[in-house]
Amino acid sequence: MGVKLGILGLGTVGTGTVQLLQDKTGRHPLLQEIEIYRVGVRSLDKPRAVELPTDVLTTDLEAIVNDPAVDIVVEVMGGLEPARSLILKALSNGKHVVTANKAAIARFGAEIFTTANQAGVYVMLEAAVGGGIPVIQPLKQSLSVNRINTVIGIVNGTTNYILTRMQTEGSNFNDVLADAQRLGYAEADPTADVDGLDAADKIAILASLGFGGRIHLKDIYTEGIRQVSKTDIAYAEKLGFVIKLLAIAKRITSAEENGGTLLRGDAATLSLSPLSVRVHPTLVPKVHPLASINGVYNAILVEGEPIGQVMFFGPGAGAGATASAVTSDILNLVAVLKTNTAVPNPLLACGHQEYCQIAPMAELITRFYARFLTNDQPGVIGKLGTCFGNYGVSLESIVQTGFQGELAEIVVVTHDVREGNFRQALAEIRDFEAIESIPSLLRVL
Amino acid sequence: MGVKLGILGLGTVGTGTVQLLQDKTGRHPLLQEIEIYRVGVRSLDKPRAVELPTDVLTTDLEAIVNDPAVDIVVEVMGGLEPARSLILKALSNGKHVVTANKAAIARFGAEIFTTANQAGVYVMLEAAVGGGIPVIQPLKQSLSVNRINTVIGIVNGTTNYILTRMQTEGSNFNDVLADAQRLGYAEADPTADVDGLDAADKIAILASLGFGGRIHLKDIYTEGIRQVSKTDIAYAEKLGFVIKLLAIAKRITSAEENGGTLLRGDAATLSLSPLSVRVHPTLVPKVHPLASINGVYNAILVEGEPIGQVMFFGPGAGAGATASAVTSDILNLVAVLKTNTAVPNPLLACGHQEYCQIAPMAELITRFYARFLTNDQPGVIGKLGTCFGNYGVSLESIVQTGFQGELAEIVVVTHDVREGNFRQALAEIRDFEAIESIPSLLRVL
Repeated sequence: MGVKLGILGLGTVGTGTVQLLQDKTGRHPLLQEIEIYRVGVRSLDKPRAVELPTDVLTTDLEAIVNDPAVDIVVEVMGGLEPARSLILKALSNGKHVVTANKAAIARFGAEIFTTANQAGVYVMLEAAVGGGIPVIQPLKQSLSVNRINTVIGIVNGTTNYILTRMQTEGSNFNDVLADAQRLGYAEADPTADVDGLDAADKIAILASLGFGGRIHLKDIYTEGIRQVSKTDIAYAEKLGFVIKLLAIAKRITSAEENGGTLLRGDAATLSLSPLSVRVHPTLVPKVHPLASINGVYNAILVEGEPIGQVMFFGPGAGAGATASAVTSDILNLVAVLKTNTAVPNPLLACGHQEYCQIAPMAELITRFYARFLTNDQPGVIGKLGTCFGNYGVSLESIVQTGFQGELAEIVVVTHDVREGNFRQALAEIRDFEAIESIPSLLRVL
Repeated sequence: MGVKLGILGLGTVGTGTVQLLQDKTGRHPLLQEIEIYRVGVRSLDKPRAVELPTDVLTTDLEAIVNDPAVDIVVEVMGGLEPARSLILKALSNGKHVVTANKAAIARFGAEIFTTANQAGVYVMLEAAVGGGIPVIQPLKQSLSVNRINTVIGIVNGTTNYILTRMQTEGSNFNDVLADAQRLGYAEADPTADVDGLDAADKIAILASLGFGGRIHLKDIYTEGIRQVSKTDIAYAEKLGFVIKLLAIAKRITSAEENGGTLLRGDAATLSLSPLSVRVHPTLVPKVHPLASINGVYNAILVEGEPIGQVMFFGPGAGAGATASAVTSDILNLVAVLKTNTAVPNPLLACGHQEYCQIAPMAELITRFYARFLTNDQPGVIGKLGTCFGNYGVSLESIVQTGFQGELAEIVVVTHDVREGNFRQALAEIRDFEAIESIPSLLRVL
């Protein structure tokens, strides 16, 4: 037996990985060289879906990352601590690490990759984003010859499942969430998913790889789907959109701000220009490739020069899909260990040290959808239009769509505008006597 | 300068690759180590879209593959010879090879990979299938920990463009083909595209990687789109399908033949069971992920255990997209050369030597769509149904859809049937007095 694994955690992903590795027929022959040497768990007595020799299971996780016999540490326990400390210890001890832990990587990536580089070992994280979808390796390798302009993902299965059901059933957020919790598609505490935090961790990782710089998680504007109403989903549908929780990272170029497209000559400016990185519910045109990604599926769209648009689609979670990604990382490391080289492969190591500059949301150029409830006074639409015009906000459409009781409902869709300008106009409009409330404000892709 | 390239050919893909490599800002920093050392062309006098020093351009392609200074040979000339001989010579001389030449790989893969393995060098072919879409590397690496059941691709942009236009415009094949030729989406001699030969080359490569065995091109059933009529596209639409030219490679399992799903315990049998590999126009349910791949875009869907379904989508051709794939292969080789290892990486080398067993089409289990023109005699539908029943062909629907002049038109959709049985029933039906002709016969996904 060649390569010895120390697996930290035997939950859903750990169990899926062990099952895959215990059943190697018909898979890559290199898997034959892998031995499940130690598996660290919290309790030895818990009933398990997999059978492992008693000397493999242990509750001493520190001992695994310190054991000189362990070649690769597979961290699938999740959470911030002790995951972070164990990863750092394993790396310092010269072990390669495979992790599915997006939260730890998004927060502690800087110290984790620095430690790995110093020790001359690799941190592999294919499973951290998009479940089984191979997207991390393509971004680090194949796509990295492109100048990446945009990475947009539907990277949280729970919220996509909820939005898909709201769309198809015309249901309310709270009802679908409760049902999703009952069915196991949402957790008892759904915060990380429905408030966009999980998606923010993932876009931090994708942006870092796509744009070759570190990302401060706090710089990412994050808005969840609690405020998305069935009313807005219905209006969006009529206007030719579906509402998706998108995680977006985009290079902001002056050409784009001026409504132009990226010029080849902008290259030097480009690599210095700031990014927009954000998570929010978004109106997506029905013809857009991301519009038809439904249910718990994930998809990541990458736009670059000269490749154009490529999209990766697949199951964003689940024991099998995530185990596939974890095991593919293990396989890659086994190949590295077989070649027995002293020089690190620059495509596997994490090269970037600098932080990306993230533009404030006020600088964002985007389209908006807004819904207003107004007292049905004559001239309200004209007043809205005039105020938007004063702030340079150009409207694509402004429609009185119906009534809610005594109040008239007006829906506005803008052309590309500077978010700051739009917000200033809204602040003024909010004070109009005729305006009762502005229940919805969403960005449009 | 570190790594010296010898590029064979300066057509669309070669020019795109040179342009990318001459403009490195904002791309992977490792590209800085690449030098365009020689470019082999047919004529030195032809005007070029790229500027190259005069000592770089040469008409002596043999000299490039024999030059000890060249580290990597990039074959982007296309065609079978002299491409094959030059690739073999380069490999024998210890040079890594990057190629976009699906035709040469599909035909001469066996001797090319054998030569590469003997010389301890790699043949990289990301650009051979799916243009810029990273699919070769994921199949060789990330996805290879799965037991692959199915690889289905829309891998020919020309035919997908033609079928998409036939669908949206209700036009005839010949009219759209002529227009596509005028617009440059189809070649003057469209045979390789519209008769499915290009797609067959590509599925041979994908199947070989997905299922870990070599494929004889002659074993691939290949049917193009010349016979697809606007009438059938319209009927398919009504039945909830679109017609796509699919390239399909699928592991045939006895479980599936019995209508069941793959069992984990079948693993040993599975890796020995034969494949079905074929290219033909196919009715694809509108809800299927491949149904919405339109125009010149390509997509490759891979199904495996435990990952489930993943799909890769992107531009299947074009200078920029293909240059991205070619350059990503070059980048990978530069990384390999940097690590300076004597032991080949088993994930980059081609490991398999055996040929896959391909089942004859008569053994295929599939659904069928067929259209009949009949003399409008009473009882024709009954007779058809009875005859199908006699051969164990179970029908999902049988509908008299209308008239063509004096003749009644009947459309049949079957459940999963053995193709051999279906053909036997058809042979008998063809002799019915009431049957004028069977203008269409298509498989259903």
